[in-house]
Amino acid sequence: MRKSVTQFALDPGLEGDSDPVASLELCQVRLMNDANYPWLLMIPAIPGLVEFIDLDAGDRARLTEEIARTSEVLRAATGCHKLNIAMLGNQVPQLHVHVIARFETDAAWPGPIWGAAPPVRYERDARVRLIAAIAEGLAD
Amino acid sequence: MRKSVTQFALDPGLEGDSDPVASLELCQVRLMNDANYPWLLMIPAIPGLVEFIDLDAGDRARLTEEIARTSEVLRAATGCHKLNIAMLGNQVPQLHVHVIARFETDAAWPGPIWGAAPPVRYERDARVRLIAAIAEGLAD
Repeated sequence: MRKSVTQFALDPGLEGDSDPVASLELCQVRLMNDANYPWLLMIPAIPGLVEFIDLDAGDRARLTEEIARTSEVLRAATGCHKLNIAMLGNQVPQLHVHVIARFETDAAWPGPIWGAAPPVRYERDARVRLIAAIAEGLAD
Repeated sequence: MRKSVTQFALDPGLEGDSDPVASLELCQVRLMNDANYPWLLMIPAIPGLVEFIDLDAGDRARLTEEIARTSEVLRAATGCHKLNIAMLGNQVPQLHVHVIARFETDAAWPGPIWGAAPPVRYERDARVRLIAAIAEGLAD
């Protein structure tokens, strides 16, 4: 069967840099493979989106509440000092939201994280524990 | 009269780097003084906000629709290739949203804009024209 052009497929670049955490009503939530910062990606599972304003008003409201819920869970799981939320997409056009837990001791503080420090691999247990904590928080 | 602690006051750092464009139901909209990128700030006029999740659900929905409307107007006024939307706030804690018109020819493309290039002053006429175009779009 040929793949329908209207079927959602995660961008391979986003997929390769991250691991799955949870599927919400609208978004796939993934953890970036960079232990410098607890860093989530949220990707609305609708094909063809590039800009936030490509979503209709109902899906914008749904995304907003999923970002808020994911932010609460990420802060509770990490005890971070600050949350950073961004939709940039200059390099990977598929609409995705960065939700990042920031610490005053992290590798980029107080600047933005992009390009600030080479990615650091998680130790396997730390990554699994963090994914589990966030997934459990989102399931509550 | 003493200033009430519950009165909204714009952070002096945000104010000093930008000029007023419009007041929406929730947000003050301002143009950053950097001609490298048409770059708006949106500041919800509620005292004491730091994180997006400090807003209640009604104000989050209002902010979301004001961001969408402002994004549409900024894209129409500039013909940009991409919109960047971000809430960082690591240096200025008062909650503010960056809405930035990006071009494939701009000083930071395809990276994020923060720290990428020294600010460039607008020529006065260009700044006034851009503010007027955005203000008119938001008034429609």
